Amino acid sequence: MSSDDRPEAAEPHDVGLLSPVSILVADAVSDAAVVERMVAAELALLRAYVAEGHAPASVGAAAEAVSVAIELSALARDAVPGGNPVIPLVALLRRQVAAVDDDAAGWVHRGATSQDILDTALMLLCRDVAAAIEQQLARAIAATAALAERHRDDPAAARTLTQHAVPTTLGLKAALWTRGLVRARAELARVAATLPAQLGGAGGTLAAIAERIGVDAALELPRAYARELGLAAPASVWHTDRAPVTAIGAALAGVVSTAGVLASDVAQLARTEVGEASPASGGGSSTMPQKANPVDAVLVRSAALRAPSLLATLQLAAGLAVDERPDGAWHAEWPTLQELLRLTLGTAERTAALAEGLVLHPERARANLDATAGAILSERLAIHLTPLIGRERFDALVADAAGARCAPASPRCPRQPNSISTRSSTRAATSAWPDA
Amino acid sequence: MSSDDRPEAAEPHDVGLLSPVSILVADAVSDAAVVERMVAAELALLRAYVAEGHAPASVGAAAEAVSVAIELSALARDAVPGGNPVIPLVALLRRQVAAVDDDAAGWVHRGATSQDILDTALMLLCRDVAAAIEQQLARAIAATAALAERHRDDPAAARTLTQHAVPTTLGLKAALWTRGLVRARAELARVAATLPAQLGGAGGTLAAIAERIGVDAALELPRAYARELGLAAPASVWHTDRAPVTAIGAALAGVVSTAGVLASDVAQLARTEVGEASPASGGGSSTMPQKANPVDAVLVRSAALRAPSLLATLQLAAGLAVDERPDGAWHAEWPTLQELLRLTLGTAERTAALAEGLVLHPERARANLDATAGAILSERLAIHLTPLIGRERFDALVADAAGARCAPASPRCPRQPNSISTRSSTRAATSAWPDA
Amino acid sequence: MSSDDRPEAAEPHDVGLLSPVSILVADAVSDAAVVERMVAAELALLRAYVAEGHAPASVGAAAEAVSVAIELSALARDAVPGGNPVIPLVALLRRQVAAVDDDAAGWVHRGATSQDILDTALMLLCRDVAAAIEQQLARAIAATAALAERHRDDPAAARTLTQHAVPTTLGLKAALWTRGLVRARAELARVAATLPAQLGGAGGTLAAIAERIGVDAALELPRAYARELGLAAPASVWHTDRAPVTAIGAALAGVVSTAGVLASDVAQLARTEVGEASPASGGGSSTMPQKANPVDAVLVRSAALRAPSLLATLQLAAGLAVDERPDGAWHAEWPTLQELLRLTLGTAERTAALAEGLVLHPERARANLDATAGAILSERLAIHLTPLIGRERFDALVADAAGARCAPASPRCPRQPNSISTRSSTRAATSAWPDA
Amino acid sequence: MSSDDRPEAAEPHDVGLLSPVSILVADAVSDAAVVERMVAAELALLRAYVAEGHAPASVGAAAEAVSVAIELSALARDAVPGGNPVIPLVALLRRQVAAVDDDAAGWVHRGATSQDILDTALMLLCRDVAAAIEQQLARAIAATAALAERHRDDPAAARTLTQHAVPTTLGLKAALWTRGLVRARAELARVAATLPAQLGGAGGTLAAIAERIGVDAALELPRAYARELGLAAPASVWHTDRAPVTAIGAALAGVVSTAGVLASDVAQLARTEVGEASPASGGGSSTMPQKANPVDAVLVRSAALRAPSLLATLQLAAGLAVDERPDGAWHAEWPTLQELLRLTLGTAERTAALAEGLVLHPERARANLDATAGAILSERLAIHLTPLIGRERFDALVADAAGARCAPASPRCPRQPNSISTRSSTRAATSAWPDA
Repeated sequence: MSSDDRPEAAEPHDVGLLSPVSILVADAVSDAAVVERMVAAELALLRAYVAEGHAPASVGAAAEAVSVAIELSALARDAVPGGNPVIPLVALLRRQVAAVDDDAAGWVHRGATSQDILDTALMLLCRDVAAAIEQQLARAIAATAALAERHRDDPAAARTLTQHAVPTTLGLKAALWTRGLVRARAELARVAATLPAQLGGAGGTLAAIAERIGVDAALELPRAYARELGLAAPASVWHTDRAPVTAIGAALAGVVSTAGVLASDVAQLARTEVGEASPASGGGSSTMPQKANPVDAVLVRSAALRAPSLLATLQLAAGLAVDERPDGAWHAEWPTLQELLRLTLGTAERTAALAEGLVLHPERARANLDATAGAILSERLAIHLTPLIGRERFDALVADAAGARCAPASPRCPRQPNSISTRSSTRAATSAWPDA
Repeated sequence: MSSDDRPEAAEPHDVGLLSPVSILVADAVSDAAVVERMVAAELALLRAYVAEGHAPASVGAAAEAVSVAIELSALARDAVPGGNPVIPLVALLRRQVAAVDDDAAGWVHRGATSQDILDTALMLLCRDVAAAIEQQLARAIAATAALAERHRDDPAAARTLTQHAVPTTLGLKAALWTRGLVRARAELARVAATLPAQLGGAGGTLAAIAERIGVDAALELPRAYARELGLAAPASVWHTDRAPVTAIGAALAGVVSTAGVLASDVAQLARTEVGEASPASGGGSSTMPQKANPVDAVLVRSAALRAPSLLATLQLAAGLAVDERPDGAWHAEWPTLQELLRLTLGTAERTAALAEGLVLHPERARANLDATAGAILSERLAIHLTPLIGRERFDALVADAAGARCAPASPRCPRQPNSISTRSSTRAATSAWPDA
Repeated sequence: MSSDDRPEAAEPHDVGLLSPVSILVADAVSDAAVVERMVAAELALLRAYVAEGHAPASVGAAAEAVSVAIELSALARDAVPGGNPVIPLVALLRRQVAAVDDDAAGWVHRGATSQDILDTALMLLCRDVAAAIEQQLARAIAATAALAERHRDDPAAARTLTQHAVPTTLGLKAALWTRGLVRARAELARVAATLPAQLGGAGGTLAAIAERIGVDAALELPRAYARELGLAAPASVWHTDRAPVTAIGAALAGVVSTAGVLASDVAQLARTEVGEASPASGGGSSTMPQKANPVDAVLVRSAALRAPSLLATLQLAAGLAVDERPDGAWHAEWPTLQELLRLTLGTAERTAALAEGLVLHPERARANLDATAGAILSERLAIHLTPLIGRERFDALVADAAGARCAPASPRCPRQPNSISTRSSTRAATSAWPDA
Repeated sequence: MSSDDRPEAAEPHDVGLLSPVSILVADAVSDAAVVERMVAAELALLRAYVAEGHAPASVGAAAEAVSVAIELSALARDAVPGGNPVIPLVALLRRQVAAVDDDAAGWVHRGATSQDILDTALMLLCRDVAAAIEQQLARAIAATAALAERHRDDPAAARTLTQHAVPTTLGLKAALWTRGLVRARAELARVAATLPAQLGGAGGTLAAIAERIGVDAALELPRAYARELGLAAPASVWHTDRAPVTAIGAALAGVVSTAGVLASDVAQLARTEVGEASPASGGGSSTMPQKANPVDAVLVRSAALRAPSLLATLQLAAGLAVDERPDGAWHAEWPTLQELLRLTLGTAERTAALAEGLVLHPERARANLDATAGAILSERLAIHLTPLIGRERFDALVADAAGARCAPASPRCPRQPNSISTRSSTRAATSAWPDA
């Protein structure tokens, strides 16, 4: 390869090329998005001082007026010596606020510590990305709920340990996907509503704030700060009690797992031999033009394999949060949480695309069911049903289950009892969706 | 080594020898404890059929009267061919119920599937172990709250990134431990109250139950079943929506992480050079008689390193719960959840022992603080405080912070402002413990 | 449930009930097996002192003569205060050696520390369990190699992203399973041959040994100690360089992953609709008598989901091995390594059983292939082959691929070119098995 | 915040802002670096066809002459529908090669599949990044070896379970860091030398290649392909045997863990109260000007907490590599391996910086040792040494250990025996560094 072969990296930085599941939504969780929230956190502190009457209104006006310009690469490079990006950001911000109002610059970062800003910024990011995830989940829920409705009477094989077990319906499968998504979204919303601001100062004691505005006012400031940001007021400083991080981490991983179930089901149902599901437009191949891969299902499954390890890192970091700011555990959280947010938002978006384009094939489901229906039902029915329903009805059931072709109106060809109850289960499963 | 050297294994099975953190409480989470809950789940199904009027009272009487004897090793061995222990258990149970009442035996496991019983049994175990964990946490909370109270005015160094940062108090440290434990316990209790029974039948459709008692009655039976067991009624079958498992997993891991923070702090404070904390009775050594190791802190920290990976496995399994019963993911949950329960209960018990025996040493904390207090405060104070409070008070503060010895009553020797505010923070941090 | 319902726990301890994959082999990795190696490590130290001429022959004789009896539950309980089981074991062992030869008792554990004994015991266990794993893998390899041979000419669909892609052969699939198993076994054997003894004394300095026998002799003793045990001589003390643990951990996890691929393939091929593989005897069901679940594949897959997290814990512990003996990381290794050994041995044994009983169904594979063969081949063939081979041969190929029934000897019915090359690939893939 | 506050994202993409440990080296593992290797893999295939005599020389000339320009963001976006970036890359590449030589374009990607290119590209990246890691480790090794030499006679406390245990030397600590780094580097180099190219075609059968150049030539082509790239010839296709990925993953994680031990030791030794180590230039703080945080140690520790989970994901993916290309597991590898490479290279670079700037303080180590030396030694010495060395020498030792001040030349003030042997251990530990 000549030196010319080297691709011209017009963009020298990462676009998430190797994580296709989140490429389309990566902007919402980018480093720029993080910096935006760090700036928001810093400026909210100015406004909180003003709102509580400690700083003059001009400080608030400066916070409104300042036009912050951050060069990301330089900020990143400057983050290395101190180990976090807030240190160089504060220096930049002070200069840029000073350009508007020299006196206001003195209020920048006053009494705060790096962790206050970065924790708060990440909570803001979590809140905003959670909202975006919820929107994508709403799309997915609407789509799977429609599938549940459409296919409520379409029998299909329930499979356990890879084998046909008993009949179910395609609708019940879709209803259970819906339930899972509704539940995961509700849990995410529950947690997102509790995300707290962080404001404790260098040692989590609010000392530098109390020194200036008094103890009682200092104890009040975190609430004002949270109010400015629309975050929950912290019950206490949480520099080393990382429950807010693990809680949102678990909720995010829960979304991915729930999507993973749907995607795993689709991947199985879409297998060439099964054919009960197919994507509206399958993914192509670099070599095989005939293929219609369930690419979105594959991508969502890849996320389901990755998210648990990210959650583990957050949980681990939470357990090692020693001292008043730990010696590595806190730093391990940042990129992990960012990646988990990105992965979950991407998963939700791809799941929505998958669900909206998903086609279920009742005729294939019926054919698959019929292929073994006799085996599924006969032995068990012989043992259990004969004493209850008599031989005649039993025979009719077996005949039906085995796919004996009889006219739909024939009195000897009742609906399968199983599909009756599964239809009822589908109804039950769909009955309690709060806001699908 | 002669063949005689081989230890005589009077007990051929595992006692958790290599997991000392949970040895003392392992009984509560043993295989026998699991079997007990599996039996309870099976018998509750009989009672539910009776309670709902589907089975005769004699079936309930048989459930009361039966004396179940299970030989664990044999049950385990018999669990291998079918891949789960419920299959051999049902056979045993049918025989043992038949010995009491032949007709009742026919109701054993009726309409249920292995997963119904095992999932329900594990939820029962989770509920019971969660209660035991809460009790241990209550001990720990009482102990750390007492430390917070006792040491609320004892200054100490807040440490960030391993270095003295600003002053705090020993009381605030203990108060934040307490907060964390209270929060983790409340979260565990919240989740434990939601643990659902499982009853869906082979394919999660309740078909085999509906076949016998009708669809409406079948949809009601899981609620009756849950009532018999004191579990939450399932909103739906959750064979493949594993949120109950991941939710309790996250709550358990949250307990371990919170305990890990306390243990990590104790391990740091107990270091020979720091000496601000010591266990009432330290662990011995096989070679060094002078040592008093903070063994409980070490054991709890070992748990904090292990629990996140167990949670990851649960979360992973949840994301791969394909079909109506998955091809490996469900099986991966069982030993993982059992070990996480055992680990968390052991962690809670050792944390209680650690907290109850923990001695904080204010004089060492003061000495450590004094060793660098000038450095901690002077530069920052010079910049920020002089314009606010004047040089005189500033000098007095620095003198105090630097450990200048002055009589407590001296007007030039005020309490450090930092310890005022940290005392206030301690008060704030302790103010909202619901039931410490 | 009356109190009588509580199962009588004749055995109060764990039998691995919830981890069926390893139940049948759990004895080899039990707590008793660990204690046996701890005793072996202690007694080898006596023999090493004798072999190097530092202790009298009578000490060696006492090591031979002593009959060690350990009560596991008591040992476990006594392990809690000091946080490890070696401390109480040494006390027991001294008493039991003293019963044989009072003077010899003074040599027990001389110069050693708990970590020396426990690390060495776990390496002994790793070596012995690795040998047992290799034996089971040999069974699996023989079985899959036979399948590769038997089915080398049996065409089947290669599937990518769940969809039929191009033809392959059943033999090539089996050949690649074999390759993976051979490779994983070789890697395990490679690592197992390097497992070192541990002997460094309390601080890893050999000081207490050097104090008695001189520095040069002390530096030699670890080699003599390793020789007595058949372990590798340690290049250095590895109290805090845990590469031996992570290396064996990675090799074990590698075995499980490789088995996981085979099991995952079997689970897919055994699906009701695919039917290209079936277990000789499938697992039963608690409710569905007709089922023949690929239980071993499911159990092995459950292991493949669990092992990576165990490896992560070992790797994590290795990175936190601070000081001369860490404050939790070392303790986290013990149960994790034990469980990973148990899981891997169980996986290897179940994989052997799975492979030996595995039946591949060429006629189903052919039928599945034919069902879509036209689609697989036609478009690509049209584009690429027509210019190369002419229309006539192309048509014949497509006809064959589409399942046109022609007599095998017909000149218009050549072997598919793809199956020629896959047959060659199978030959290539099977050509380099060192010792299958 | 006004809309103007939003930072102007001159670079819209990620710079790794939240992972400071790898910011300075992220370019080497960027998406552009990945694309460069994908292009290299594609072009090598052209050259391999030429080298083996299947394609005309003009194809090789085109491969040399083509100037490849890739717009990363567009490529990423186009990677989503098919789920991987090779599909759009091939289309681009064909156009760009066609611009040079229309006939040559037909050879682009001939017979290959996306996985061939992406797997090969990642192996190239692994090889190149491994080389960069080895260079950084060489820096770190030189620095720690110098510390070992410089401090071989400087006594310090060995600490176990956080407590002073027995004496060691600062040199031995540094020697063991060195050993670990040498070992981890050697293991990385060993694995890096085995990284194979991948070339199997759509189903891993080489069928599309064999179709064109014959079976024997097709079986030879992967070797020629590997030769063009300087990778190892694959023993077989490894589409679903992911040992190359897990092996390099384990070696990378091993580097991070080994660095984690050094960093953890430094973080402990640098604690304010211990003071035995300090960074040449400590990291600053956003609020506390006096602080000199051991930032690099903290960053490396954060990596040590993150890497094991990434390894777990790779190991997990390896165990689920079903079919001829799996339904999610392969996709999960890519971003995980990229991040593990980035993290490890960053860790190595920061560890080099840490080690090169590390100052050990023998006088603090001695003071810490003296503070408790009597306790460390007296009881044990009383028991064990008195019978061996007599009371007089014992008393002298204890006096010395307890910090009794005597002139260095005094006959009653011998070197501690412990420091003699630890010095010897240091010598032993440093004796076998192959190329430090």
